[in-house]
Parts: sequence; structure tokens; C-alpha cells
Amino acid sequence: MKIGILGCTGAVGQQMLQCLSERNIEVEELRLFASQRSVGRIFEFKDKKIVVEDMATKRFDNLDYVLGALEADLSKEIADDVVKAGAIYIDNSSAFRLDDNVPLVVPEVNGNDVCNHSGIIANPNCSTIITMVACNAINKLSPINKMIVSTYQAVSGAGVKGMQELNEQIRSLGHGQPCVNEIFSKQIAFNCIPQIGAELENGFTTEEMKLQNESRKILHNPELIVNCTCVRVPVMRSHSISITCNLDQAKDLEEIKKALMNACGISLMDVPTPLDSSNQDLVYVGRIRKDPIFENGLTLWCVGDQIRKGAATNAIQILEECEKLIS
Amino acid sequence: MKIGILGCTGAVGQQMLQCLSERNIEVEELRLFASQRSVGRIFEFKDKKIVVEDMATKRFDNLDYVLGALEADLSKEIADDVVKAGAIYIDNSSAFRLDDNVPLVVPEVNGNDVCNHSGIIANPNCSTIITMVACNAINKLSPINKMIVSTYQAVSGAGVKGMQELNEQIRSLGHGQPCVNEIFSKQIAFNCIPQIGAELENGFTTEEMKLQNESRKILHNPELIVNCTCVRVPVMRSHSISITCNLDQAKDLEEIKKALMNACGISLMDVPTPLDSSNQDLVYVGRIRKDPIFENGLTLWCVGDQIRKGAATNAIQILEECEKLIS
Repeated sequence: MKIGILGCTGAVGQQMLQCLSERNIEVEELRLFASQRSVGRIFEFKDKKIVVEDMATKRFDNLDYVLGALEADLSKEIADDVVKAGAIYIDNSSAFRLDDNVPLVVPEVNGNDVCNHSGIIANPNCSTIITMVACNAINKLSPINKMIVSTYQAVSGAGVKGMQELNEQIRSLGHGQPCVNEIFSKQIAFNCIPQIGAELENGFTTEEMKLQNESRKILHNPELIVNCTCVRVPVMRSHSISITCNLDQAKDLEEIKKALMNACGISLMDVPTPLDSSNQDLVYVGRIRKDPIFENGLTLWCVGDQIRKGAATNAIQILEECEKLIS
Repeated sequence: MKIGILGCTGAVGQQMLQCLSERNIEVEELRLFASQRSVGRIFEFKDKKIVVEDMATKRFDNLDYVLGALEADLSKEIADDVVKAGAIYIDNSSAFRLDDNVPLVVPEVNGNDVCNHSGIIANPNCSTIITMVACNAINKLSPINKMIVSTYQAVSGAGVKGMQELNEQIRSLGHGQPCVNEIFSKQIAFNCIPQIGAELENGFTTEEMKLQNESRKILHNPELIVNCTCVRVPVMRSHSISITCNLDQAKDLEEIKKALMNACGISLMDVPTPLDSSNQDLVYVGRIRKDPIFENGLTLWCVGDQIRKGAATNAIQILEECEKLIS
């Protein structure tokens, strides 16, 4: 298989490189692309040295898959060239997620949707992926129709620079020096910032609305209503999500736990914390209990690595799904 | 006024001492009590030096008010002696909060309830105080009947030792040394722990049920249903609370914001973070928006200093309320 990675120097791009080497994928050729200032940098992949190429040349010929780890605007610019070159473009950005011609896929949930692609397949938002994996088995028992969610999102969601900013602020404070914040709107060390993305007219942010809009598409349920509050917390790379949802039908708590126990991609744990899921592909689910408010309500907590399952791993699982179903 | 503080060496006891000196209260005599190992320690109060007395001697004679900053079991043991000595006992512990003969008071919300005391007045749980102050004006517009809440609770909720543990873990990690956790069940630095208190049969924890049980009493609304998820986050001393609630009647968002703007004890802010409210008595409220799920639903975010308004300040405001209403 011939694979390219766009934006190979960022947190997600680097993780894609690592995940590709870990997983049982036969990579015949790997090509790495980035913006001009990274051209010539060398990364190792399975004992081979790979030189970073200039993304702007748009030479994507002879590739089977291109994994995109770019910002949405850059991704929009380049997607057409990838598809024209004959590769399947698996895009981690938000550029095409809600496009009717682009499947939006969490393999454990709607893997079959990859069949409907026209060259591009989108990787969902990180919190959405983690929430969908956690809720998939429940939604199969009985469709989820409402969700009230509060997130505890790691700084890795803002990329390598987000992680650096948290580390530098912690270091500055330790030396009694003032904190600098450039990536986040306020100090993130020892703080929580309840605003991710831009605020919309309804008072929710772009990040908060993704959970509703993307989940509707992934679950094929346009009626799903989600009320989400997205919060940045001083955690390095794993998101936590506090979920209360309502099901169409009443389900016994034991039945729900049993379904979760047998579900793909998750592991049950009494008190899952973001450190437990860091540097891992599994989503951990716990604190499962009956909600006293909704008729068929359920409350639970889940954690998942934002860079892995929330981005890189899911993209590569989409590639594996394509191989399984299309080839 | 003659005032005593029980447990004067802890985070809340020390804050009570500081709040008393800041506020406009004429303290004729201040006596400090603690366990035996702190006897003889000296604290300053308004340029006077005060020697810590042994709590176990139970010599509470001649005091008007005793502020309690003890664990619940200790408070239960000693309350009777305080009341018998003729003082009003304002207790920060959970010992008497749900006792029918003990008012549970957030002065901004149900200050008048202090009139019904029989010697003891209870200070609510810290998250409950902050939530009640934030929601009071809304609840007055139209009663709140349901709440779905996720908390982001500071380590100060576990006392001085909780704050020390976070600091020490950050320092250890900075030096590449392993983290020790004694106060919290897992590492709290760069982590979130979704369990505070002991788990009950319904899957909720003791801490989570406090928000329902105490809010019912404070709001005089035994029908109120609260679904709460309590989470410890690596923040020093200020709690954050993500709230979705439903009102009995439909209320316009502008009307709600206006009521909040004029409410006591709070200040509106676009993006309130726990650092904004640290070392302050105000509760900051923001991210106010219509909830798309409940019929008359509302979503908001609030932050408040756990040691001040969540404990010490509220206790002293109860004392001030007593002076206003009883004396």
C-alpha cells in the first residue's frame, strides 16, 4: 500500500506516522508532506529514513491513500488535487465533515459508510469520536435521542503548541515568573477555560455544535439533539466527557453494562481518568448510572486519547475499513 | 461580638480568620481552637496575637458565635457543647445540613432561614453554595425543577493537603520523578478524577447527591431533581460548574440575563474561569444560553472560590445575617 501523510510534522501527523508503524498494515511506500519550512526534515519509519516533501508541489501521484492532518482551509485547497491524483483522501480537518458526498466515519460505529465515498472520507471531531465510541453499544440497544454533555478537553486539541503552552506556563509559575498565553485565551495552567471555538448566534460554540451535527451524521439520526459545553482543562492529551443521554426505549442498567462490556473499542473501568487512556487507542467508560431526570436516561463518563483515537488512530482505522470493504 | 473558630489551622479555618478581619465586623474577642497538636500556635488577628486553645477542653463560655471548620464526625461530637455554652454554632461540615432543626443557609438565597435555628446553622457544600448563588435569580423568575450538572472541582476541596499534593506532583513531574498520591485516589496533576466522595447504591456519590439534597432544602423545593457528576480537576482553589436546568415557566433569555445582572453575589462575565474567581467572594456566571432539550431549558457556567464563598465567606455571611435578623 502506498500512503501519504499531509501535515506530517504536527501532533496528529506525527501520531499517524507512529500508528502506521504499530499497526499491521503493509506499507509499500510512505511519503511525508508538509509546508515549505519543513521540507528536507527527515523522519524514520520502520528503519527507513523519509525526507519531507513540499505539500505545495501537489505531487500526489501513485498513492493509494493520503491521510490529512491539516487545518480546514488548507485541506479544502488541497483535497481536489489528492482525489484527482487517484488517492483516497482521509481528512482529519472539519473541511468536509458535513458534506453530503463525504462519509464521516468512526469505524466501530458506521464503518460501512466508507463505501459511499467519492474520493474523500472525513475523520470526525475528537470529542465526537470518543463520545460515539463510548455510546455506540447503547445506541444499538436503543437509539439515543438526546444528550447533555460537558467536556474536559486536553490541550493537545490545540496541537503541539497547546501542549507546549501548558508546559511553559507550569514552568514559569514554578519559577515565580508571569505566565504567557498565546494559544489559549487565558492561562490554562491550574485553570479551566469554558470556550473552545467561536461563539455562534445561539450561544453555543462551533466546537460544541460539532458534537450534535457530526453525531447526527455518524448515527444516521437527524433528530438527535445535543446540548454540549466544551471546556479546556490542564490535561495533556486525553479528553474526558461527562454524558447524560435519553434512549428511545427503557433499558435495564445491567443490559446496558453488558452491551458496553462486549462493545468494540472500549473498556469498562470504575473511575476512568484521562491519564488512564493517554497513549492508548481504547476509550475507557465508567460511572454508568441511571439518570433520574429523563424517562429513559443514562449518565456516564468516558475518556480517550485525543491525538490517537480522537484523530490519528481513527483515520488509520478508516483506511483499514476501506481496505476491508472496498478492495 | 465574641467569636470562636474551631479548626482554625485548616484551609477553611485560616480563611475564616482572614475573612473576619476583612469584613466590617466588630470583633470584641476572637478565640481560636484546634486539636491538641496545634495548641500554643499563634495567629495574628488585627494586630493582636491569639494563642490556639485545645478544642478538647470544650471551654466555649462567653462566645456569641462559634464558626466550625471541622470534619463532620468531630463537629457532631462538639456541637452540643458549643450550643450549651450559649453560642450560635455555624458549622461548615456536612454533620447537620439535612437536620430538620438546623437551617441550611446561603444568605443571598434563603437568608431569612437563619431565624429558625435552635443553636446550630449549617453552611452548605461548596459546589452547592456556588450553584445556588449562580441560579438564585433564575429560580426567583421561575422555579428550577431539574438540573443536570457536571463540576470541575479544585483540589482545595480536599483541604491544605489536597493543594500540597497537586503542587508536589507538579514539582515531581518537573524533575522527572514519580508522583505520589495519598489524598486523591489517582494522580491529579494533568488529570481529572470523576469521583468525589463514596459511591452510593444508585451509582451517584455522596458528594453528587449533596447538590440535590441540599439544594432542595435551600430552595424550599422538595421536588427538585438534580443529576450531578462531580469531578476533581488540577485547579487550586476555585470550583467551576456546568449547569443545564429546566424552569417551571418559559422565560426570555434577555429577561434571565437582566435578572442575573442585578443579582446579589454574582457578576456576569463572557468566559469565567476558576482563576478569575480565585481569592474573591463573587461567583462569576457566563456562557448563558437556551438549552435545546428541556421545554424551558437554560445552560450556563459558573465559577467561585471554594475556600471563600464555598466555605469561609458564606459562614461569616450567615453570622452577619444572624446579627441583622435575630439581634
